[in-house]
Amino acid sequence: MDKPATIKDVADLARVHAATASRALNPQTRDKVSPRTAARIVEAARTLGYSPNSAARSLRTRTSSVVGVVIPDLRNPVFPPIVRGVEDALREAGYLALLGNTDGDAERERDLLATMRGQQLAGFILATSKRDSLPFGPDVSVVLVNRRTDAGDVASVVADSRAGVHALVNLLVERGHSRIAHLAGPQDTSTGVERHRAFLDGLAAHDLAPVGVEVCAAFSEQAGFEATHKLLAAVRPTAIVAGNDMIALGCYGALAELGLRCPEDVSVTGFNDMPFVDKQRPALTTVRIPHYDIGYEAARLLLERIAAPASPPKRVVLPVELIVRGSVAGPAADRA
Amino acid sequence: MDKPATIKDVADLARVHAATASRALNPQTRDKVSPRTAARIVEAARTLGYSPNSAARSLRTRTSSVVGVVIPDLRNPVFPPIVRGVEDALREAGYLALLGNTDGDAERERDLLATMRGQQLAGFILATSKRDSLPFGPDVSVVLVNRRTDAGDVASVVADSRAGVHALVNLLVERGHSRIAHLAGPQDTSTGVERHRAFLDGLAAHDLAPVGVEVCAAFSEQAGFEATHKLLAAVRPTAIVAGNDMIALGCYGALAELGLRCPEDVSVTGFNDMPFVDKQRPALTTVRIPHYDIGYEAARLLLERIAAPASPPKRVVLPVELIVRGSVAGPAADRA
Repeated sequence: MDKPATIKDVADLARVHAATASRALNPQTRDKVSPRTAARIVEAARTLGYSPNSAARSLRTRTSSVVGVVIPDLRNPVFPPIVRGVEDALREAGYLALLGNTDGDAERERDLLATMRGQQLAGFILATSKRDSLPFGPDVSVVLVNRRTDAGDVASVVADSRAGVHALVNLLVERGHSRIAHLAGPQDTSTGVERHRAFLDGLAAHDLAPVGVEVCAAFSEQAGFEATHKLLAAVRPTAIVAGNDMIALGCYGALAELGLRCPEDVSVTGFNDMPFVDKQRPALTTVRIPHYDIGYEAARLLLERIAAPASPPKRVVLPVELIVRGSVAGPAADRA
Repeated sequence: MDKPATIKDVADLARVHAATASRALNPQTRDKVSPRTAARIVEAARTLGYSPNSAARSLRTRTSSVVGVVIPDLRNPVFPPIVRGVEDALREAGYLALLGNTDGDAERERDLLATMRGQQLAGFILATSKRDSLPFGPDVSVVLVNRRTDAGDVASVVADSRAGVHALVNLLVERGHSRIAHLAGPQDTSTGVERHRAFLDGLAAHDLAPVGVEVCAAFSEQAGFEATHKLLAAVRPTAIVAGNDMIALGCYGALAELGLRCPEDVSVTGFNDMPFVDKQRPALTTVRIPHYDIGYEAARLLLERIAAPASPPKRVVLPVELIVRGSVAGPAADRA
């Protein structure tokens, strides 16, 4: 690559002092430079590829170049690649990410958003998962990630959960299963609800009904473990579609405790393709979500909305990928 | 939404002057208000959902309540709990975290820090791993995480790598191993260098010399895989101390490819106790680093330095924990 252009290069091309060029390219100080000079400097920066996207920033000078990114918990392995994707797209445009965790706690979220709003941010990316209404008026640029509000008119980026669950159900049916159960995610989350619905109508497309559905208290290993015990106390499925990978790992634990082998006695599927589920025994069949791309797209979408706040909010749905591994086999002969 | 509460509203409810309310709600000036009055004002602010306009506040006091947090890559599983710990400690003090990834790339780091410095942040927490000198003058509050500069006088929080490596070496020697090799991390990182040194003097304490040392190109599974192949082309250790868990997982892969069983033929140890290494086959013996606590302590330390910039910089070393799992056994009789 060429040596990147410096502020001095931009200043030379625009025939101004470096300090003037710097003022013109900083939204906070641009009003100290005459509009014509500022325009010339911005043009020079664009020509040289110097911080190109800050040049695309509007001449309004009161906007911040910081975006609030609000997630439930960074320690949940789906979020690091999403946040990384967000940050990469923001950085390309000269923006920075202010990160906050809410633990899915409404009060913590309210408090965090209030503190962030005090920073007069350019916009927000929200990956918190509750289906309640949005804590913003229409004056704030917002993009939702992995979540939709029932309220409607908000830009969002999600993975195609529905297609993913259908692919899992189709795989199980093709392998000969008809006694299929679901360990659903919490039903106050949009992902939990969507996957549950997709499970039901995926089965219905094959003229099948679920042999059992147990709702998990959380998208966690412990909740999956407990729900599996409850499920298997009542029914004997030959295959279990878990609401996500964590729930599937809890299901593995409960099956082992009950002396049931996976996949010989029960096939199990997950959702997300978290790091290391390929290293489990058995390796987990799951659906790969393009987490990085979701974050990247969400940030691009937010930057679009910041540039054109009145534009209609897009809803982006990204494709998913079925990942078939050892946790799925045909049903055992004596159970089929 | 209602009209947001102003500082005047808070002051009225707490029966104080607006200036007093403002002082009490600003972490930098709270100690100028009596604790009882401050508590009453904080309570009033909470009741009214008052969010201080921090941008305006930073203009007045020339300080910000935002801290820059710079890491190599959030997708490396050691960083999410560190960042979460940082954010929790910052939030308790009313501060926010601006997060950036550098990929260990010097140019990306320089660019990121320049952009962040443009935001006039209160300070920085740096978890980037290169051992080069610090990109700040003494006017900027900085705490290093998982890293020390050779340059010296900078506050830092690290885990006791040295004690962790010694515990691993002692365990292997106790189990009867004397032919022990090391897959060292990159030697331009302080963790790679420290663990390598600790490995050598840990062995020396038992009057042992390493049977072989191979330096990995990165702290990654692929680099561990390649280094294991190189190592085993030359020597036959009965135990391998890997520079971290990722390198250990690469070692697992290479051993399997060479038809060597772990732990029957070769014992393997990791470092970090990443999520899911307890679920590997065999489960990995490793050293648990208190990642969340490291982040939390780093943020506390930074807040101390922001409050008292002239105080001497502390260097905090947190204890680690040996986690013994199935990947370590005694040496095979025919190799001992």
